[in-house]
Order: sequence, then C-alpha cells, then structure tokens
Amino acid sequence: MIEIFIEDLNQKFNYKEGITLKEILQNLNGKFKDVIGGKFEGEIIDVHTPIKKSGSLKLLTKKDPESLEILRHSLAHIMAQALKEIYGDENVHLGIGPTTENGFYYDVEIEGVRLTDEDLPKIEEKMKEIIKKGYQIERYELPREEAVKFFEEKKEIYKIDIIKHNIPEGEPISLYKQGDFVDLCRGPHLPSTDKAGAFKLISVSGAYWRGKETNPMLQRIYGVAFWSDKELKDYLNMLEEAKKRDHRKIGKELELFMIDEEVGGGLAIWLPKGAIIRKEIEDAWKEEHLKRGYQLVYTPHVGKEHLWQTSGHLSFYQENMYPRMQIEEEGYYVKPMNCPFHVEIYKSKQRSYKELPIRLAELGTVYRYERSGALHGLMRVRGFTQDDAHIICREDQVEDEIRDVLNFALDTLKSYGFDEFEIYLSTRPEKSVGDDRMWEVATQSLRKAIESTGIDYKIDEGGGAFYGPKIDVKIKDAIGRMWQCSTIQFDFNLPQRFDMYYIGEDNQRHRPYMIHRAIFGSIERFIGVLLEHYAGFLPVWLSPVQVKIIPIADKHLDFANKVKDILLQNKVRVEVDDRSERMNKKIRDAELQKIPFMLVIGDKEVENNSVAVREKASGKTESMTVDNFVKKITSLIKEKK
Amino acid sequence: MIEIFIEDLNQKFNYKEGITLKEILQNLNGKFKDVIGGKFEGEIIDVHTPIKKSGSLKLLTKKDPESLEILRHSLAHIMAQALKEIYGDENVHLGIGPTTENGFYYDVEIEGVRLTDEDLPKIEEKMKEIIKKGYQIERYELPREEAVKFFEEKKEIYKIDIIKHNIPEGEPISLYKQGDFVDLCRGPHLPSTDKAGAFKLISVSGAYWRGKETNPMLQRIYGVAFWSDKELKDYLNMLEEAKKRDHRKIGKELELFMIDEEVGGGLAIWLPKGAIIRKEIEDAWKEEHLKRGYQLVYTPHVGKEHLWQTSGHLSFYQENMYPRMQIEEEGYYVKPMNCPFHVEIYKSKQRSYKELPIRLAELGTVYRYERSGALHGLMRVRGFTQDDAHIICREDQVEDEIRDVLNFALDTLKSYGFDEFEIYLSTRPEKSVGDDRMWEVATQSLRKAIESTGIDYKIDEGGGAFYGPKIDVKIKDAIGRMWQCSTIQFDFNLPQRFDMYYIGEDNQRHRPYMIHRAIFGSIERFIGVLLEHYAGFLPVWLSPVQVKIIPIADKHLDFANKVKDILLQNKVRVEVDDRSERMNKKIRDAELQKIPFMLVIGDKEVENNSVAVREKASGKTESMTVDNFVKKITSLIKEKK
Repeated sequence: MIEIFIEDLNQKFNYKEGITLKEILQNLNGKFKDVIGGKFEGEIIDVHTPIKKSGSLKLLTKKDPESLEILRHSLAHIMAQALKEIYGDENVHLGIGPTTENGFYYDVEIEGVRLTDEDLPKIEEKMKEIIKKGYQIERYELPREEAVKFFEEKKEIYKIDIIKHNIPEGEPISLYKQGDFVDLCRGPHLPSTDKAGAFKLISVSGAYWRGKETNPMLQRIYGVAFWSDKELKDYLNMLEEAKKRDHRKIGKELELFMIDEEVGGGLAIWLPKGAIIRKEIEDAWKEEHLKRGYQLVYTPHVGKEHLWQTSGHLSFYQENMYPRMQIEEEGYYVKPMNCPFHVEIYKSKQRSYKELPIRLAELGTVYRYERSGALHGLMRVRGFTQDDAHIICREDQVEDEIRDVLNFALDTLKSYGFDEFEIYLSTRPEKSVGDDRMWEVATQSLRKAIESTGIDYKIDEGGGAFYGPKIDVKIKDAIGRMWQCSTIQFDFNLPQRFDMYYIGEDNQRHRPYMIHRAIFGSIERFIGVLLEHYAGFLPVWLSPVQVKIIPIADKHLDFANKVKDILLQNKVRVEVDDRSERMNKKIRDAELQKIPFMLVIGDKEVENNSVAVREKASGKTESMTVDNFVKKITSLIKEKK
Repeated sequence: MIEIFIEDLNQKFNYKEGITLKEILQNLNGKFKDVIGGKFEGEIIDVHTPIKKSGSLKLLTKKDPESLEILRHSLAHIMAQALKEIYGDENVHLGIGPTTENGFYYDVEIEGVRLTDEDLPKIEEKMKEIIKKGYQIERYELPREEAVKFFEEKKEIYKIDIIKHNIPEGEPISLYKQGDFVDLCRGPHLPSTDKAGAFKLISVSGAYWRGKETNPMLQRIYGVAFWSDKELKDYLNMLEEAKKRDHRKIGKELELFMIDEEVGGGLAIWLPKGAIIRKEIEDAWKEEHLKRGYQLVYTPHVGKEHLWQTSGHLSFYQENMYPRMQIEEEGYYVKPMNCPFHVEIYKSKQRSYKELPIRLAELGTVYRYERSGALHGLMRVRGFTQDDAHIICREDQVEDEIRDVLNFALDTLKSYGFDEFEIYLSTRPEKSVGDDRMWEVATQSLRKAIESTGIDYKIDEGGGAFYGPKIDVKIKDAIGRMWQCSTIQFDFNLPQRFDMYYIGEDNQRHRPYMIHRAIFGSIERFIGVLLEHYAGFLPVWLSPVQVKIIPIADKHLDFANKVKDILLQNKVRVEVDDRSERMNKKIRDAELQKIPFMLVIGDKEVENNSVAVREKASGKTESMTVDNFVKKITSLIKEKK
C-alpha cells in the first residue's frame, strides 16, 4: 500500500502500489473531469503510468502550464501516426519525438519521400482526423527481448537502437498505443487523442540521427502547440513578428554589422553605423561605472598558459577555449574570460582592508569556441565583449555591494526600455568549493538584494556553479520573449587558487569575497536584443543617424546645409539627402533607415528659418524653428529617451 | 687614373686609382689640417682607405656630424687596445666593436676576468694614455690565408669566425694598426689616436656571440663619445634625466600600468589610474576623428588563415605573427594588423565614386611577436593598440586627403605639447608593386603636403615599402630625444590583392587609392613617450587624479568632502586625503603622485568657503573661492592644457 496526498483535496488516500492516476480519478467519482495529468513529487505524470511510491500529487488541468508538456508529447505521437497512415507503416521509421519550448518535433525516416513545407497541411489534416477519432491512449510494458522483437518486426531500427543504448538493463520498457499506432515511449501522454489542443506544423529540416554526421540523415518535422486557438495564433504572430525583427536582417538593412566568412564565423565586425551604437552604449557604460565607484582597467587578449592553469580554466574550461599558441618557451591562450587578469591587478600590491571594496570594470573582448553550427548572428558568437566587473570586498561589505550591483543592473536595463524582469537565484550544488559560512553569507545577500527590489524571483535550488551562488536577470522584450542579461556570481574558487588576501584591521591576512558581474552579459548580444526589441527603431540617442534633412528642391540645399551645421555643432548625427530624387522617395528611404527625425525643407521653411519635423515615433509632422528643434533633440539625446 | 671632384674646393682633380685621402690632403699642401675623413659618393671614408673609382668627395671635419662615426669607431679600437694592455694580449679575445647612435661598444672575452662597472675608470685611464701617445693609425690588407694565420697566432677565434663567415672570398681583408694593436676592421678610423674627442664608458653587460644563446657569452662594454667635453656632458645629463623619466619607473610609482610575468612579457595591463589616461586619450581621439569625417569601426582580434593569405601577411609577415590556431576545419591567427578587416568592410558592398573618400578608423589592438629580449616597457611590446585608419579614395582626392591627414597628425601631436617635428619622406624602392602613375601621384601628394606645413623634411630615396611611399613624423621630447609617431603610408598592394574597386562616373570599375595612417602609432607607446616627456607631470586633463584635497585636521573633513562633491559633479577627478597624517606628509605624498592641484583646507578656508590652491605647475599657492577654483580647473580640463 502507498499513501498519496492529493493537494487539490488537501487529503491523504491509501492505494495499492502501482495504481494509475486514471484509477485514482475513477475512485474520486468523476469529480475531476478536466484532469490531463498530474505532478507527482515534482515530476509530470500522465493518467496511465503506475505510481509506485507514496508522495504528494497535484492534479493538472489545461490551466496549469505544465500540462502543455503532456499535450505536446501526445501531438508528436499523433503526428507520427499520421505519417504512418499517409506514407505507409512499413515506410516510416521513427527516431525521437520530444517536446520543445513551444511545441514538439519528430525525427523520422520516410523511405523514398523527401518532405517539404508543402506537405505539412496534408499531415496536419490527417492529425486532425486522428484527434477527432478520439482514440484511447494506453500504456503497457514489455520485457526487453519482446520489445526488441516487436520493433524488429516493424523495422523500427532507431527504436531498437534506443532500447539497446539508452535503456539500462532491468528498467521497464514502456509503450504507448493509440488505435493501431504503437510507440516506444516514457510518456507522459493525454488520456485520449481528442483531448489534444491547437497546433501547427511549421517546418521540416534535416537532422542526423543522434546529431552525428556519420549517421543517417532523418527528417525533422517541427510543430507548435497550445491548448487554445488564441494562444496558438498569438504565438504564431509572435513568430512572424520575431522574423521581421530578426537582428541579422535589421543589421544588414541598416548596415550595422557583418559576419564575414572570410574573417570567420561568429566574429562580428561593426560597420560604421553599428559602431556608433556600440560606442554610445560603451561610453554610457563607462561613465556610469565611474560614477558608481568602479575603476576601469584594460587587459590583454592573450595570457600565458600558467595563468590559465592557476585559474583552473585549462582543467574545466579548455574545450571552450581557442587552441594553445607556443611563443618561445611559453604557451599562450586567447582569453575566454577576463577574471585572471583582474585578479593579477588585485594582486599587483598588498591590499589593506581600507582599500576594499575594489571594483574593477572592463569592456573585455573574449573569445570562446562554439560549434560553427551553433552560431547565430550576434546572439551566439565566438568573440564577444563582456561588460565585466569584479568586486573584491570584505564580508561586512557583501550585502551593500550585492544590493548596489543588482540595482545598478536593473537601473541600466530600465534605461534601455526594459521594465519586466525575471530573476533567478541559484543556490549551492552538491559538489562545491568554499566554506559553509561564505556560501551562507553570499546566498543571503543575494536573496536580500532581490527581495529589496520587490520583484518576484525563482530559486534554482542547487543550481549554482560549484564555486558560488548567483543571480541571473532576464528581460522581457516587446514581443514577450525573455533574454538572459545580467549575472551576479560569487566566486570562492579564484580567491583560493590565486591566494588572494587583504591585511585586516587585525594585521592578519584575510580571504576577500569576490563577485563577478555583468549587466548586459555581452555587448554584441545586448545590441542584438535591442534591435529585436525595438525592431530597429532605436531610441534617439542610439540611432546611428538621428536626423535626415530633406530639401524639397535644389534651391533649398543651402538652408539644409546650414541646419545641418547647426545640428553638427550640437553633436547631433545628421545627414542631408541631396540626391536628385523626389521628396516622397527620400522620405520613404529615411523611414526604411529607421531614422527618428526627418526635417523637410521647402520655401516656407527657408523663409521662416524653420523646419517641418516628421517624427518617426509619433508619426506626426510639426513645424518649428530651428532653435526649438535643436532644443528638442538635444534634450532627447541627453535624457537618453 | 680616376677623377675626383672635391666639393669643398668646387674643383676636379685627376689621381691614380687607389689614392688615399691622406695622400690627397698632402697634395693640397696642408690646406685642410682639420680633416678627419670624407664622404665619398655618400659613404663615409677615412684618410687611410684607397679610393678606387671616380666620384664626388666632401671633406669632413669635427663640425660635420658624420665625422662622429669615425671618432666612435676608433674609440672602440682604443678601448680594445686598452683592454689588451691591462689584461694581457693573450687573454683578451675580441668580438665585434661597432658604433651606436651615441657611441660605441666592443664585445670581448677576457679569460678569467668578469668586468663590473667599477673596472671602467681604469679602462678609461688607459684609453686616455693611448690617445695621448698619438699613435699613427695605419691600414693594410692581407691575403685571406695570411689573415687567418695572423689571427690564429693571436688566438683571436672570433676574428677568424668573421673572416670565414662574413667576408666573401675575393674581398680584400683590411686590418688597422695603432702602436702594437692590430684589429680586423673595415674602418673608418681617425688619422691618429690623439685626434680622439671626449668619451665615457657607461656600462658592461653580457652578450652572446652573434646574439645566439648557444654561443659563448662575451662581455659588452658600452661607451658614449662626442667631439667636445660639453657635448659629452650634455649627453650624460640627458641620460641621467632620461633615467629619472623612465616611463617604467613612473608607471610603477604612479600605479599606471604593469607588465606581469604571470600574464606574459610585452603584454601591458592598464591599472585604474593608467586606464583613465588611456580612456581620455581614446575618447579625444574618437571625438576628433568623428569631427573630421572619419567613421569608427570595430573588428575582431582573430581572423581566418585565408584572410591572411589573401592579404599576403602569411608570406611576408608571418615571423611577426602569433602562431596558427586550428578551429574545426580552419586555421586562425591573432591579428598583427587591422588592414584586412577594414578592406572587408570596404568590400561589404559595391561602392560608388560618390561614396569616396571612405575613412575607416579603429583603435585596434594588435599582437605581434617580438623576441623577449627586445621587449621594453610600453615602448616595445607584444600587444599594442594602433590608432589606425584607412582612407580609400579616388585619385582626384589624394592630395586633399594627404594634406588633411598630415595636418590632423601635427595638430594632434601639438595638442599633447610637442612642437618640434622631423618629417621623413620615403620614396619608391627598386622592387615595388603598383604602376608608375600611382607612385608619382602618391609621392607628389606627400611632398606637397609636407611642403605646405613649412616644416623641413628629409627624403629617404628608395626607402619606401615595396607597396607604396610614406611620410614618417618624429616628435622631439622635453630632453631632446626624437620619437617616431605618425605614419602616412600608401598601399598599392592590398587593393590589388583584395581586388578592391569602386564604380566610377563612367560606370566602370576603378582601383581606389588606399592610405594607412596612424597618428600616435601605438597608444601604449605614445603614453610611454608622454610620461617621459612630462616626467610624469601630465597635463591636467590627463592626470589620473586632478585634485587632492588636504584637510589640515579632522574638523575640516566635512568641508573637504563638500568641495569634493562639487568637483565630482563637475567631472573633476578628485580625492580627499583623510589619513591621520601631518599636513606636510600629505602634501609631499600628493607631490610624489604628481597631482596638479592640491587644495589645503583649514579654519580660514571653511570660514570663507574658499580653498588654498597649491598648483604644481607654477609652484604657487593661492587662495580662491570654491566657485573660482571650479571655473579654473574645468576650463583647464576643457581646453586640454
């Protein structure tokens, strides 16, 4: 007998071992018709799987986001069943069919058929038929030998491969059945196919079996799925919107950056207009850091092998590093991180407790190996600029420092137009270095700092690095996507490895606390996020060209250039469109370049020493004196709005 | 018979082939008693060497700087003779004894004797004796066999090594003799030892024979030499002054930068106070470039092998590059130059004649291999930041561009307090790429640009790179030393290798002109020069700490902090010395830190809302209101004075 506490009833029940959720629900007399599955001891289960131990159970309905996992899993099976019905059971060999963040995919081999996007509606139709038929979904187990035999008969070679290589001897082998369709699967699944919600198949692409290039290439069909049509539609709109906002597309159209195969994948080159954006962000970053008591430093991009040995990078991070370079008797590595250099700066002289906290900040460009297949625009690169800082302080300073850093991060992100955050606190994992007291002080300071902001946060218990707890901050963009940005990370490892210390008031050596932190994480990636967030329409202070002056005819060119000079003197980035094009064409081009202000200049403007201001943000056109426009735009730039 | 035109007489003479300058002078009846040697067809000759062809001869006296070469050469021999007389002919084995920029050295092996600086006065004494004796210096030649036999008898193994490996078969082997002393030598030498001028031996150090670590270590004795005692004294004072100004010493004292063996030789790390200097210089640089129509870019620190093949660096520059790194299927190199990246930016789209000139500028940190023995503070490093720009333009724009670049360079250098320049124009060498017309246009534009500045210049005929002519600008520092800074260099090679073109008004492809240019050359090195030029007392805008506030007693601390806040709001870098030290100690420490302004605060100042301003530059102390001091210092900072 096992004892199950049903959270929804706030009540304990005794059942025989191996009871299923379906049976439990039957015992509850249909009280919970909407139940899709459950969460048992933190794990999502379906109605089919035997429960073999006592524990706490929460019932899941469509209202619980966890239930989506069950829906998406079953839709993968329904898609596989549809493929078998369309292309013939004997021709379709199934690989794996997992869920994704917003849907599912299945890797399949279809003999003699190469799917294209045009085949997807047909498959969707068949899936809808299967859903409508309302097949009961059943789960059963087979002994290993029999399972292998079963899939051999069906020529499901990939399933056999999974049984042989992924399921340890002695573990139950479970299968799920709906109608004629049977699949090797651990679940969870819906009670029946007609419980399925809204879905759409969105793409088909190639995928090597087990991701290995020497294995056969299967076809991967991606779908997205939600419970309601509305949610699906919203998500598809978001995808469509995301495509339009793709920073790689915007970067190309606005000539902001390029990634050039001649130079190397994942190595961004900032073109003049993008370099201005980067410079503005870096200048503001430096100014704000100096204001907040940080000290700027510059360190080299290569460092000696021995340094990376001392830091431990060569033991636990080497696979992410560029290869060794031999110079005279020494090995050198391009830096994947700035930390060891900052430690050397700290160690450049003996430090007294009076000097702490020391806050060293650097826009340090680091290089890390990423598989060429994983590279993605500015988001996933091989070279990027960390907005890095290391705070070295005494225990009695930890709390203030962490609170200040978190506020600094949030203030900065807000100043770029982000106002929704998700904060994660990752605590001590099982394997870790550093003493209990330091972990406690550090974790408490992180927790207190978050709580002082009033922002909800999630705890990732045991999810910290082996060398210290951390806070991660994610920001929500204009179309609802979350992006990881700031990190505040304690490090109990480097101070020990480099034997960092300060002389305390007691004249003894003490080990300082060390905090790594970045606000943007990566300048490159952050600019990518900004471009997608603003769909390229950056705030005025970041716009590469802030004002485009459009003289209607040649005779207005002199005045246009006069206005240009006035703006230049006020450090406004301005261009005159002196091409012999029609005004409408010039306006359209300036709009495509996402320039925040257009100044149209004709007879009236020349006469009145005024400009007709077309403001991108408001869509309005307004006439004002040149002076007033200068005041308006310089104040916008100064306030970074 | 040969015909010799004696420039000093503006007259031609006929002589038998092989006549010496001594014989010529004898023929001229003692008219030129002060002659030390001559310059024959551009080459410095002594009075001993036979003249074997017709040509033009200029007589050299002590007034001609070229005659120093002869003096210094002979002093090396005189020193070798002194060593032999002191330590015994059979114990002293001579290596090489060349001249240096301001003197000479000789590499010698002395059996059983390890010289120290304390031995130098004794050697100097002996040298003076030899000079006083007035030995005639004689030159004679020996057949190869006999020369080898002669030096074998004298156990001069290094001389034999030179004959065997450095003097080609068939070339005359010349020896010089003064008293008993004979040396293998090509000259030139004084007529007799008593013609020698003022000299001083300054150091002794180790030097491997032929610079190779597997060869025996010899002892290198350095001397400096001039014609007059005054010149020698001035030079020695300058050396003394240079030692005090050594940027490595100042950098350490003021905590500006460090070069850390853990990180790697030649890799500068900028400590907070030095980083501020670098940031100020870089910010000013960027602002001025934007103002002058340059576009900023950022490029990565590594690039693909194929890029460096295309650029040609792997064929003609590889020995200066860091080693290859293999990533997946590709080779990568850390960049030794920024050029190929800027070329890729130019090529990122098709360019029209209307877009030119394009001026791409970057503070690009590059890495080059230098022998660890050659590294020297910030002056000779393995990683440095070029203030790099590439101008790509049409032929009709070349002249304006070059003039603007040269003025830009001179304006910038002047703004850092340098006002004496040496300009060098290097023209087409024998082996070169690019067509005649382009060389002509380029060289003329360089010449015209220099001439428009009114500054004297020297022409290094044929001294240009194979890919284009160039201008080099040297600046004179406070103690008279010249430092190479700006370079303006045409490149006819890269446009061809990368097939760069623009579409002309005629709709055809045209090859643009490409100009590399740097104003400082290297930010690191330039800061080194600045530190030595100013002996660490930087102009206010560059000073890491601009104001030190010194409260006399604790009760003045509140007002001190108030003044500090006011200055901080005005972006002045200020510190309060709140240590419980005596005022004089605080003042002395601020002076050692070379802080331009000290504000001493006592009762009177608190009462009058004033500060007692001690200005480092004037050495004066002056009382003024806080407001007036803020005005004074912010205007100094703004004007960069």
